[in-house]
Amino acid sequence: MADEERKIEEIEEEDEERKPTTEDLEEMILRHDVNGFRELFINTPDIDIAEAANDLEPKDLIWVFRAVESKYTAGFYDELNQEAKENLVKALTDKELVQLINAQSVDDVTDTISEMPANLASRVLKAADKDMRRDINQLLNYKDDTAGSIMTTEYLEFRDTTTVDDAIDEIRKRGKDAETIYTLFIKNAKREFVGTVDLDDLIWAKKSQKLSEIMNRDVVSCSTSTDQEEVGQLFRRYDLNALAVLNEDDRLVGIITIDDAVDVMTQESSEDIAKMSGVVSAETPYMEMSAWKNAKQCIPWIVILLVLGTFTTMVLNRLESQQIFTALPILIAFIPTLMDTSGNAGGQTTGLMIRGLALNSFGPKQTGKILFKEFRSALIVGGCVAAFAFIWITMEQFTGIVDLGLVVETSGATHDYSGFTIWNGLVWTEGFPLHAITNSALVSVTMFAAIVASKSIGTLLPMGASAIKKDPALLSQPLLTTVMDVTTLLVYFAIACLFFPAFA
Amino acid sequence: MADEERKIEEIEEEDEERKPTTEDLEEMILRHDVNGFRELFINTPDIDIAEAANDLEPKDLIWVFRAVESKYTAGFYDELNQEAKENLVKALTDKELVQLINAQSVDDVTDTISEMPANLASRVLKAADKDMRRDINQLLNYKDDTAGSIMTTEYLEFRDTTTVDDAIDEIRKRGKDAETIYTLFIKNAKREFVGTVDLDDLIWAKKSQKLSEIMNRDVVSCSTSTDQEEVGQLFRRYDLNALAVLNEDDRLVGIITIDDAVDVMTQESSEDIAKMSGVVSAETPYMEMSAWKNAKQCIPWIVILLVLGTFTTMVLNRLESQQIFTALPILIAFIPTLMDTSGNAGGQTTGLMIRGLALNSFGPKQTGKILFKEFRSALIVGGCVAAFAFIWITMEQFTGIVDLGLVVETSGATHDYSGFTIWNGLVWTEGFPLHAITNSALVSVTMFAAIVASKSIGTLLPMGASAIKKDPALLSQPLLTTVMDVTTLLVYFAIACLFFPAFA
Repeated sequence: MADEERKIEEIEEEDEERKPTTEDLEEMILRHDVNGFRELFINTPDIDIAEAANDLEPKDLIWVFRAVESKYTAGFYDELNQEAKENLVKALTDKELVQLINAQSVDDVTDTISEMPANLASRVLKAADKDMRRDINQLLNYKDDTAGSIMTTEYLEFRDTTTVDDAIDEIRKRGKDAETIYTLFIKNAKREFVGTVDLDDLIWAKKSQKLSEIMNRDVVSCSTSTDQEEVGQLFRRYDLNALAVLNEDDRLVGIITIDDAVDVMTQESSEDIAKMSGVVSAETPYMEMSAWKNAKQCIPWIVILLVLGTFTTMVLNRLESQQIFTALPILIAFIPTLMDTSGNAGGQTTGLMIRGLALNSFGPKQTGKILFKEFRSALIVGGCVAAFAFIWITMEQFTGIVDLGLVVETSGATHDYSGFTIWNGLVWTEGFPLHAITNSALVSVTMFAAIVASKSIGTLLPMGASAIKKDPALLSQPLLTTVMDVTTLLVYFAIACLFFPAFA
Repeated sequence: MADEERKIEEIEEEDEERKPTTEDLEEMILRHDVNGFRELFINTPDIDIAEAANDLEPKDLIWVFRAVESKYTAGFYDELNQEAKENLVKALTDKELVQLINAQSVDDVTDTISEMPANLASRVLKAADKDMRRDINQLLNYKDDTAGSIMTTEYLEFRDTTTVDDAIDEIRKRGKDAETIYTLFIKNAKREFVGTVDLDDLIWAKKSQKLSEIMNRDVVSCSTSTDQEEVGQLFRRYDLNALAVLNEDDRLVGIITIDDAVDVMTQESSEDIAKMSGVVSAETPYMEMSAWKNAKQCIPWIVILLVLGTFTTMVLNRLESQQIFTALPILIAFIPTLMDTSGNAGGQTTGLMIRGLALNSFGPKQTGKILFKEFRSALIVGGCVAAFAFIWITMEQFTGIVDLGLVVETSGATHDYSGFTIWNGLVWTEGFPLHAITNSALVSVTMFAAIVASKSIGTLLPMGASAIKKDPALLSQPLLTTVMDVTTLLVYFAIACLFFPAFA
C-alpha cells in the first residue's frame, strides 16, 4: 500500500517535470478534459504549454480559450506566438476578446498590435477598455528601439508627502493592475519624479512616516527617446528592478521592468552577434523563419563583400602582370595564410571593441588610450606570431610540406629543388637554404607588419563608427577584411621586392 | 529673490546628475568633508562613486571608510574593483573589517575572496561571523560557472503550513538579511522544495490562509551543478525574479537573484563574442587588462589558425606544380574573393547556430531539420550570389578592371589581350569573349558549390560540437575557415580542369 502510494507520487512528480507536447494537448482536447487543462495551467509554466500549443489547429486552440476560465489563460495567451495570437483574435467573439485583452498588460498588447494586420489590430483596440486604449495609442507613437516603445504605463506613483500607511492601503487597492509593486515611484508637488521606494523599505518603515523620508534619492531614470541599448546598460550597471521613464518635463510617463530589460539585452546581444557574422538581423526567431527569409538576410552582405573583394582581385591581377609569380611561384602559396592571419588578428581586436562599446566599458572619447594599448599589444602579438611563423615556414620548406619549385644555378651547376624534401638527404648548397630562409623571413616580416596594421585598423573602425553614432558592429568586420586583404597583399609584394631585388 | 532660489535649485539639480570624478573626491578628502560624503552616498548610485574612488590613493580611500559610517559605505565597498578592495582589507583594523564584511552579502564576499591572495582571504574569513564563514566555505566548494558558485545562501524559506500572518511577521524579523524578500521559498514536511510565494500574493492574501494555498506550483528550479549558461536561459524563458537551487535530495540550498543572473547572461554573451572572434576569453574587464594580458589572450588562436593554414599552403603549392597558374594566371586573382565569399556564407550560418544554441532556441536533436532548412537557404543564397558574380566578373574582365593577360591564337593569327579593356574598342574574336565568359562561369559555379558546402559545414560544426557537449562558439569559426579554404580551392581547380581541359 505504501509502495503503491510512493509509485503514484513518483509518476506525478515525473509528469510535473515533463513539458507537455502538442500531441498531449490534442489528446486532452479530444477528451474535452477541462479539468486536466486547469491542472496543467496550475502546475506548468505558461511558456512550456504555449510552445506546444503554437502547433495546435486554430479550432483546438480556440476551444481551450472557450473551455477554460480566463484567470488560467490570461498569462498563457501572452506566451503564444504571433500567428496563434492572430488566429485567436480572428476567431473569438467581441465579448470573449474584451475579457482576454483587458487581462493582458498594456505593453504586451502594444507589442502584439504593432505586428498585426490593420483589421485585427483595430479589433483588439476596440476590445480594450478606454484607459488601456489611450495608453496603447500613446505607446504606439514611440519610435522602435526606444525606451518609450518598451515601457509600460501600469505603475504605482505616489506623492512624496503620502504616509506609509496610506501607501500600503493604496497598493492593496490598485496594485493588481500594476506591472510591479516592488518599486513605487515618487513625485513632488510639481509632479516631477524625485525618487523611488522599495516595497521592503515600506514594510520596515513606521506607519506614520512619509514616503519622502524613506525614499531612495540616488535613482537613475531615462527619457522616452533613450535608445534601448542604453536602457540595458542602465539595468546592468545599477542592478535595477525597474527604471523610470520621464518626459521632457521630468515627469514620469512610464516604467520599464527587469523582465522586459532582460529581453532587450538578449535582443541587443543577438543583433551584435548577427551583425558580426554579416547577417542582416531579423526579429523573427530562427525556428519561425522560412528558408527564403533566412536567405534574404544573408545575401546583402555577401554581395557587398563580393563587390568590395574586387579590390583584392585588382591588386593581385596587377601584381601578376609584374611576372613575380612566374619567377617565384611559391609566394602564391602563402597568400591565404597571410590574409587569414591578418584578418584574424584584426577581427579579435574588433570583437573586443564591439563588445566593450556595447557594454559601455569605454567610449569613443578613450580612442587614443585604447589605440595605444592595442598598438603595444599588437607589437607583442606580431612579434610572437612572426617568430613562430619564421620557424614554421622554414620547417615547411625543409621538410617538403611545401615545394620550393626552385631551380638554382651555383658555380655553373644547375640544382633542381622541385619536389625536394629533407628526407631526400640534405643538399647544402649556397642557393637553396638561403632562398628558403629568405622566403620565411619575407613571410614573417609581412605577417608582423600586417598584424600591427590590422590591429590598429581593427581598433579605429569600431571607435570611429561609434564616434559618428553609427553601430560599431555593423560595418567593422567586413570593412576590416577588405581593407586588410588589400593592405596585406601590397605589403607582401613591397617586401618581396626588397628581399628579391631581381624581380622588382 | 525667487530667481536666486531657482538658480540654486538648478545648480543642485545639475550636481545631482553629474557623476563625481576622482578629483572631486580628492578635494573632499582634503577638506575632510565628511558631511559632503554622506550627501554623496545618499544622492549618487554607489557604482558611480566607486568608479571615481578606484583611482584614489589607498590612504585616501581608507580615510573615507574610517570617516563615514558603515551604513553609507557597505554597498559602496561592493562596487569597488578588486585592487581597491584588497587595499582596504590590508589596511583596516580587525574590528573595522568585522563591521565591513558582515554588512556584505555572502555571495559577493565569496566572489571577492576567491580572487584574493591567501593571506588576505583568510583575514576576511576571520572577520566574517560564524554563519557567514560556514556559508562562504560552502560556496567556495562549488565549481566555477555552476549555479552553486553564483547562488547565495541568504533567502527566506517557510513551511507550506505556515500562515500568511506568521510569514509576514517572520519577514519583518529576518527579511533584512535576505537577498530578496519578493520571492519566498516553500518546503514541505520532508524539507523538499515545493513552490514559491510572491510577496504581492502575500499582501493580497487573507491573514489566516496557509502558504500552500497561495503558492505557485508551476515553478522551475535548478541543481547546484547546473551550468550558469542554463541558469541564464531559465531566467530568460520563465521571466524569473529568483531561482531556487536544489541539492540531490530536492532540498533548497541556495537561490540566484535576477541581478546576478543578468551579470551571468552578460558574461556568457561576452564570452560567445570573444570566442567567435577567436579570443581566449578573460574575466578581467578590458580597461583593467594590460597589453601583455591582452596579447596573451589573442596569440593562441592566431598560431593555431596559422598552423591549420598549412593545409591551404600545401594545396596551393601542389596546384602550382601542375602549371595551371602559369597557363591561366588570371585564376589566381579570384582566389581571395572565392575564399572570402565561402567563409562569409558559412560564418553567417555558424553565427546563427551559435546564438540559437546559446539561447536554447533549438538543440542538437533538431540537426536534421535545421540542416535541411540551411541547405534550402544555401541553394537560394548560392544561386543569387553566383548569378550576380557571373555578371560582375564578366564586367570586370570586359572593362579591364582585371586584366586577362591572355594571348589567343585564332586561325593562325596571334591576339594579345594583355592590358585589354573594353575602352580600347571591342575586339570580337572567337577566343577572347569565350575565355572571359568561361572564366566568369568557372568562378560563379565554384562560388555556388562553395556556398552550399560552407553553409552545410557551418551548420554541422556547431551542432556537432553541441551534441558532444562542447562549446559551439569555441571551435566553429576557425575550423570552418580552414576547412572551407581548402575545400574551395579544391573545388575551384577541379572545376577549372573541367572548363579548361587543356590544362588538366
